[in-house]
Amino acid sequence: MNLTINKDRLAGRLTELAEIGRIGETGVCRLALSKEYKEGMKRVREWMDEAGLKTRFDNFGNLIGRLEGKNPDKPAVMLGSHIDSQPSGGRYDGTIGVLGGLEAVQTMMENDIVPETPVEVVSFCDEEGHRFGVGLFGSRGILGKLEPGELERADEDGVTRREALIEFGADPTRLQESEYDADKIASYIEMHIEQGPNLQEQDEPIGIVSGIAGPRWLTVTLTGVSGHAGTVPMPMRQDPVTGAAEIITAFNSIVQTEDGAPAVGTVGDLKVTPGGRSIIPEKVEFTIDLRDSDLARRDGYEQQLKETVKAVSEKHRLNHEISDDGGTTPKESSKEIMTIMSEESETMNLAPPVLMSGAFHDASHMADACGMGMIFVRSKDGISHHPDEYSTDEDIAVGTELLYRTMLRLVADIA
Amino acid sequence: MNLTINKDRLAGRLTELAEIGRIGETGVCRLALSKEYKEGMKRVREWMDEAGLKTRFDNFGNLIGRLEGKNPDKPAVMLGSHIDSQPSGGRYDGTIGVLGGLEAVQTMMENDIVPETPVEVVSFCDEEGHRFGVGLFGSRGILGKLEPGELERADEDGVTRREALIEFGADPTRLQESEYDADKIASYIEMHIEQGPNLQEQDEPIGIVSGIAGPRWLTVTLTGVSGHAGTVPMPMRQDPVTGAAEIITAFNSIVQTEDGAPAVGTVGDLKVTPGGRSIIPEKVEFTIDLRDSDLARRDGYEQQLKETVKAVSEKHRLNHEISDDGGTTPKESSKEIMTIMSEESETMNLAPPVLMSGAFHDASHMADACGMGMIFVRSKDGISHHPDEYSTDEDIAVGTELLYRTMLRLVADIA
Repeated sequence: MNLTINKDRLAGRLTELAEIGRIGETGVCRLALSKEYKEGMKRVREWMDEAGLKTRFDNFGNLIGRLEGKNPDKPAVMLGSHIDSQPSGGRYDGTIGVLGGLEAVQTMMENDIVPETPVEVVSFCDEEGHRFGVGLFGSRGILGKLEPGELERADEDGVTRREALIEFGADPTRLQESEYDADKIASYIEMHIEQGPNLQEQDEPIGIVSGIAGPRWLTVTLTGVSGHAGTVPMPMRQDPVTGAAEIITAFNSIVQTEDGAPAVGTVGDLKVTPGGRSIIPEKVEFTIDLRDSDLARRDGYEQQLKETVKAVSEKHRLNHEISDDGGTTPKESSKEIMTIMSEESETMNLAPPVLMSGAFHDASHMADACGMGMIFVRSKDGISHHPDEYSTDEDIAVGTELLYRTMLRLVADIA
Repeated sequence: MNLTINKDRLAGRLTELAEIGRIGETGVCRLALSKEYKEGMKRVREWMDEAGLKTRFDNFGNLIGRLEGKNPDKPAVMLGSHIDSQPSGGRYDGTIGVLGGLEAVQTMMENDIVPETPVEVVSFCDEEGHRFGVGLFGSRGILGKLEPGELERADEDGVTRREALIEFGADPTRLQESEYDADKIASYIEMHIEQGPNLQEQDEPIGIVSGIAGPRWLTVTLTGVSGHAGTVPMPMRQDPVTGAAEIITAFNSIVQTEDGAPAVGTVGDLKVTPGGRSIIPEKVEFTIDLRDSDLARRDGYEQQLKETVKAVSEKHRLNHEISDDGGTTPKESSKEIMTIMSEESETMNLAPPVLMSGAFHDASHMADACGMGMIFVRSKDGISHHPDEYSTDEDIAVGTELLYRTMLRLVADIA
């Protein structure tokens, strides 16, 4: 493939950045606002400076590199992701979106293309959320979406986010100055590893993301009557394990009702009380994680699940409770951006599959403020948040080329 | 009903014994070989002495009261059960079998009936097994069935069974002297509370036990591939929770294949690893407790379960392991004794249901050495091993009357 972007420079930077916070051969630990994070962010800033961007750290701990373009007052096209990691993470994750974004803009500048609109490359602070328990911090921050008390959340050493921000060099008393006005961002494009096996399965280097699934979280509690495993005849039992098994089996079918739809349903945890070999359990509690890019369909599946819980509970004479543990609404990618990505892919002789993102990204919140687009890069075996996380330099370069071409179309738009 | 036995004396003794180790209003804690156990056993011995039995403690901690009858060399008819309890037990459990047995023999003596064969009333030591982790101690002991090392098992305070036996007054170096020769016991009849809801459900005071179910214990481990709940499409999942749910649902049907058969199957515990709301689990481990009075049928159900585990694992691409955690073979009641019980019930204008015992009893091992028979007394709501355990004085008296009449038939047998 003929690439406009500089694959070797991009790969070199990825390798170099992976040294900062490196664990073992291939792992990375670069927790948000940590020493390693700060060092990594400084390195990225140096590269942005080299490229000729106007760079700054904001008060959320984000790094932003800006190119003004012909019309500095126009809303910006923003490219980015995050370079913070999970404690035992890999080197690709969101990092490819930050360095890929920079590569795209640098390539444009080297080709003497002056955009009509401003372009910004952003490295968002604390997407992962491991350290303070809540993530997507920087992207929520610039959109004025932080929750009360977030700055007082402490990490396991008792350091609050406020203290960590100050230590990083940010000024948490002046957060508002770092927020963006609603009309200042035209679009946000994020490249990220897929974190799933679809692209590998389909033998495609990249995919176009149709939207970010909104998870729906519930906890189902079934209460029956405990008893001796030997003395209570089957027809007289009120056994919550049997009930749970039927519900889980049904749930698995419900989420697969529509062939090919991206809906997924997971029972990630289940607890049995009291839990002994020869005791009919009294209580079973299990979690539900239901995701779909289509909110109406997700709501329909949730309804079916609830009806199943009710019917199975009646059948086995169990009490049931379904606790509402929240969730978020699915976010759709911009149709225009998806179309541009498809058209540009064609010129690259590619036909990337259209995928839903089951995981959150900074793009989740950006989608509320502007047109959002995402490019997924093939992940080996779908592994992420693990030192085994791996995407090839080739696939990342292909994704970055599409990012570059998509950006060119967007920054040319002076409508 | 016209009772030959002395209902009030029996009820009085039950109430009096319940004071020894009493907890709360109705509970009993009389752990094997404890201070309370010793006091309780001494009281029972006094009652045996009063009745005119020749009493002794043996070296297993059993109490035996003997009436020689006309032919002291004949094998004895033995009546009994145990008075030790679970830590938070009730007052009825096996105690009604000991005091009921004594009541039956005492009634016979008061009616100047001299049996052809010897009769023994036995209060077996440590049926419950709570303190040293293994029960049915006294009944296994007299049959020479103890396992190596049993005397060295320690309770939670570090006291070994050997030390506890010595403290009780037994001599654990002379256990063999307390064993019974194979031809010294003709039959063993045990009255016990049902510990299940069948009799209450059928509105019957007592039941005749057809046999003691042998439990089969297995642990099933399913291993799949963990993943992000949002990013792995349903058809690509190798989710052990979904597999476990299908197996448990099928297991529940398998054990109910034969309508009205007493087979029972229980999944009492299930553990999910790693266990997080948004993580497709990697591993699920669950226990199987399968019981039936018919060994061939139980074996068939076990086979069906294993085939199901295999098929479901293949379907979901899971690795499966089934660990064999042992079990025991079912024990059948003596057909002759069951017939005598039925006939005698008829004379009492009763038609007791024939029930399987799902729980173990001292009768389990006695069945290997002699003709075994059991009478179940209705348990309120099937509750046992709990202060709420309850059987009425009337029902216990009816059971004791049948025990008495059955004994009379057996001790008259000089064939």
